[in-house]
Amino acid sequence: MVMRMSQLFVRTLREDPADAVVPSHRWLVRAGYIRRVAPGIYTWLPLGLRVLAKVEAIVREEMDAIGGQEVRFPALLPREPYEATNRWTEYGPSLFRLKDRTQADFLLGPTHEEMFTLLVKDLYSSYKDLPLTLYQIQTKYRDEARPRAGILRGKEFVMKDSYSFDLLEEGLAASYELHRQAYTRIFDRLGFDYVVVQAMSGAMGGSRSEEFLALSEFGEDTFVRSPGGYAANVEAVHIAPPPAVDASAVPAAAEIPTPGAGTIDALVTLVNESVPRADRPWAGADTLKNVVVTLKYPDGQREPLVIGLPGDREVDEKRLEAAVAPAEVEPFGEADFAAHPELVKGYIGPVRLADGGHVAVLGLEGEAKVRYLLDPRVVDGTDWITGANRPDTHVVHLVKGRDFAADGVIDVAEVRDGDPAPDGSGPLELARGVEMGHIFQLGQKYSQALDLRVLDQNGKLQTVWMGSYGIGVSRAVAMVAEGTCDERGLCWPRHVAPYDVTVVSAGKGDAIAQESERIATELAALGLEVVWDDRNVSPGVKFADAELLGFPTIVIVGRGLADGVVEVRDRQTGDRQSVAVADAVAYIAEQCQG
Amino acid sequence: MVMRMSQLFVRTLREDPADAVVPSHRWLVRAGYIRRVAPGIYTWLPLGLRVLAKVEAIVREEMDAIGGQEVRFPALLPREPYEATNRWTEYGPSLFRLKDRTQADFLLGPTHEEMFTLLVKDLYSSYKDLPLTLYQIQTKYRDEARPRAGILRGKEFVMKDSYSFDLLEEGLAASYELHRQAYTRIFDRLGFDYVVVQAMSGAMGGSRSEEFLALSEFGEDTFVRSPGGYAANVEAVHIAPPPAVDASAVPAAAEIPTPGAGTIDALVTLVNESVPRADRPWAGADTLKNVVVTLKYPDGQREPLVIGLPGDREVDEKRLEAAVAPAEVEPFGEADFAAHPELVKGYIGPVRLADGGHVAVLGLEGEAKVRYLLDPRVVDGTDWITGANRPDTHVVHLVKGRDFAADGVIDVAEVRDGDPAPDGSGPLELARGVEMGHIFQLGQKYSQALDLRVLDQNGKLQTVWMGSYGIGVSRAVAMVAEGTCDERGLCWPRHVAPYDVTVVSAGKGDAIAQESERIATELAALGLEVVWDDRNVSPGVKFADAELLGFPTIVIVGRGLADGVVEVRDRQTGDRQSVAVADAVAYIAEQCQG
Repeated sequence: MVMRMSQLFVRTLREDPADAVVPSHRWLVRAGYIRRVAPGIYTWLPLGLRVLAKVEAIVREEMDAIGGQEVRFPALLPREPYEATNRWTEYGPSLFRLKDRTQADFLLGPTHEEMFTLLVKDLYSSYKDLPLTLYQIQTKYRDEARPRAGILRGKEFVMKDSYSFDLLEEGLAASYELHRQAYTRIFDRLGFDYVVVQAMSGAMGGSRSEEFLALSEFGEDTFVRSPGGYAANVEAVHIAPPPAVDASAVPAAAEIPTPGAGTIDALVTLVNESVPRADRPWAGADTLKNVVVTLKYPDGQREPLVIGLPGDREVDEKRLEAAVAPAEVEPFGEADFAAHPELVKGYIGPVRLADGGHVAVLGLEGEAKVRYLLDPRVVDGTDWITGANRPDTHVVHLVKGRDFAADGVIDVAEVRDGDPAPDGSGPLELARGVEMGHIFQLGQKYSQALDLRVLDQNGKLQTVWMGSYGIGVSRAVAMVAEGTCDERGLCWPRHVAPYDVTVVSAGKGDAIAQESERIATELAALGLEVVWDDRNVSPGVKFADAELLGFPTIVIVGRGLADGVVEVRDRQTGDRQSVAVADAVAYIAEQCQG
Repeated sequence: MVMRMSQLFVRTLREDPADAVVPSHRWLVRAGYIRRVAPGIYTWLPLGLRVLAKVEAIVREEMDAIGGQEVRFPALLPREPYEATNRWTEYGPSLFRLKDRTQADFLLGPTHEEMFTLLVKDLYSSYKDLPLTLYQIQTKYRDEARPRAGILRGKEFVMKDSYSFDLLEEGLAASYELHRQAYTRIFDRLGFDYVVVQAMSGAMGGSRSEEFLALSEFGEDTFVRSPGGYAANVEAVHIAPPPAVDASAVPAAAEIPTPGAGTIDALVTLVNESVPRADRPWAGADTLKNVVVTLKYPDGQREPLVIGLPGDREVDEKRLEAAVAPAEVEPFGEADFAAHPELVKGYIGPVRLADGGHVAVLGLEGEAKVRYLLDPRVVDGTDWITGANRPDTHVVHLVKGRDFAADGVIDVAEVRDGDPAPDGSGPLELARGVEMGHIFQLGQKYSQALDLRVLDQNGKLQTVWMGSYGIGVSRAVAMVAEGTCDERGLCWPRHVAPYDVTVVSAGKGDAIAQESERIATELAALGLEVVWDDRNVSPGVKFADAELLGFPTIVIVGRGLADGVVEVRDRQTGDRQSVAVADAVAYIAEQCQG
């Protein structure tokens, strides 16, 4: 059936939407594929819905190919299962919560680990039933603080989520690998330029996890990769700690006056003047910076945390958020300093030097009440300049292990271009991407919490090993658009395009209209999806719309008709061919199907 | 691809679910098509989801065939549009309401009139853009007070809703008729035994509306039909009022003592003794019963309402609810009687006889404060026995129009088998059904409230005429099951069955397994959807499961194999054929595709 452009429910817009910051958002709105209802909430218009359906079909095919069985859970879910795993609380403000008319608590599902675990527990009981992979393609909800970029990060979105169930840990590894391969095929078919990186498990729990990131300068995820093949989300980078240092020759710690040394740079300049080193000048990396923040836990409790790291590095906010989740990070304000007089703003350090010894201000020992975590580079024997816990005063030669200790390690310093890869595979390069897929080895977190056990070959109950695997399906539509659009609009790959071809009647007169309709109808009869632009507007408007809408093949039936030819344009390459009218249908069909 | 039963995610259950009251619910749960998550909230298991997808495909085809264009709105919707039409309030407790992290109000869409109206207003502006029909197949939410019968009435369900937009009222009539025909084709294809009845528009507003009711003894809707073709939901029955009566010969109204006449029967017995009629005995139909209820409006206001109707009929609760919607009906309790001393419980009547005249207690005149509506049978000139507004006292010969008046008419008396059809087409017959589809001529309610206007041929703005049309898609799955199941389980029509055929290996041994697999594989290669029951359980269990699961064709590969035959059973007719192994695939394919 030929869709007439005069009847297609679409309006192309000449202006960018006011809130558009990324190209896919701009073009999907301007081309009439999606329409905003509220921040982060969009309607799929006919063209957009057709692309979504094609992406869904690719995902479904590849999930079926690895033996996945499709189910569909409700989005409206009772509180209890999420209470059992503590996610009702841990999800924090990103979870949409509501009550029904009986005041019972419900949520709108952001992800369905609990429900799948309970379903399998409900129906299965034996090792013979495993392995099992279930999936759904379903609407999900997250109350995003900063919905952005159209359908790239919305409050309501379509996800494919799947879950694997295995008797043994090795089975989980195999199911995980199957998903990894299926995801590779899916993203290959969608035509993404993507990279697979090690990832944090975050609120999911579990052990191994990887992300499929589409490369994009607009990406919210920063990742690193090395020439030797290491690749990780920066949140998941665990640096290789250097070996301990022999500090037997380091002089005793001593206080020095440092009035006005408000920055690391000023401090370094000052110590190079007042206590110069013999071997080399002091550098920012010789200072131990102590950053204090407040952690807010899901139960509402707050706690100060001091992070000690080399002074030439900043704390990476996203690495910190990932490391302390589900706690949230808040600033440590004036009132907090007032409540902790032991922390002298600008001069925080792990110890205070007192008559013949050290009083621990931070960390494990003595009276210290504030938790203190150190960057992994701060190994035993390292020699630091740091705050003395007195105004205008620092300590030099404070040695880790000799003069101070900490409560533990926290690996949240910024990762920089050129840093060595943790696995020794060379210098790291930083890049940005959009998370398209995420695969998790959940392990037994959910099966333990919800008591999913099956009988093994010996009649013994075994806790099931689970994996969970997600693909942002609506986000993928945006990313295909993002990766293929140009300065004239959308430019769909053939296998996800809403229509294969548009036949443009470029000019007035019955001959043009009749010939356009004939070509469109014959193409449709061959199984192609065809739009006929039959509108009573100028050829220029039609050409611009055709390029904006992004159908792969554009057929122009216009002035050339007098000479017995039509023009066939390839939207992506820009190639234009004059084709004899008699050959047109066969030629176009070959272009579209070839 | 052949699905092996040993791998299919399904567990058949031998016991009925505790809350099952209708066969479709029982069988869909026992056969592992759906699984309950919470009251009115279900998960679609693989088999159920396949049926749902097939029903969706039929609906989509027929909507496309009448030029409908598919879109998809979010389920999470902002409050404002529903505020503009007052439905945020009018929907009452059936609407799921929630807040996002900024405390903005949202709802989960129960139906999308507002959103479609705004979308068309957003993109279209000219008569040239019309007519237009948009539809979606989407998950919807209603906080049902009494979710029941599995997926038949749930809190989360799948609906097809469509909306038509026309410049003129005649255009709306044409769009409505197109939908009516499409719905007829859809329900014919689904194999329903259904009836199209006149319906109330309810909270939708608008004028003409009809329901497609599947006939079912478990239906919540009661409808009537006549031999002459009248058919209506009882809520929508408007009785034909009888002509006015000449009351010139009726004696003056008079009070009579009626101690202990607490029921209509007792009253009739008593008046036949104390004030017998000359022409015939008094009957219940001679008494005017006055029923008092409280109306509760969406804004929280309450108001008493007295309904006067012939004493031989009851008020029909559903007809009353429909008539007063969006107000709700509550009992008029002791405290209410205390607040209205003019209403003497058991002796309520429209007037109190006083010295030489009547004091209006109910209705328009004088001091009356309580609203009074009359059954349409109570026409001018009719002669009644009714309450005297004094304890133990009634009035006889109280004549409508002569002795009392009312504020209006309310047609909420029960409809009875044998009542005349309002259009004179014969006696009514009562039956029950389940609402499968509902079509509405909305008129201009939403386009006026949300200002959807387009320019007409003369450049004048015209308010658009709208229709709205719904089909319960998930409910249709239940009703197909309901209409086809038998005492052994489900029994799917071929075009919605999750699989076409199941090949059962009935017995041990390699020969049976190999031949089963070969037949299954060859059938799958022909494009059939095949389950091979390869499980290591007894033939008896497999036969019972095959019948419970309801695949249309069952192939038994068992003892007959030694004689070179397999058995082919038709699940619906029970027909069993022995077929030579060599002919089996061709024979089965013909059965399935024929």
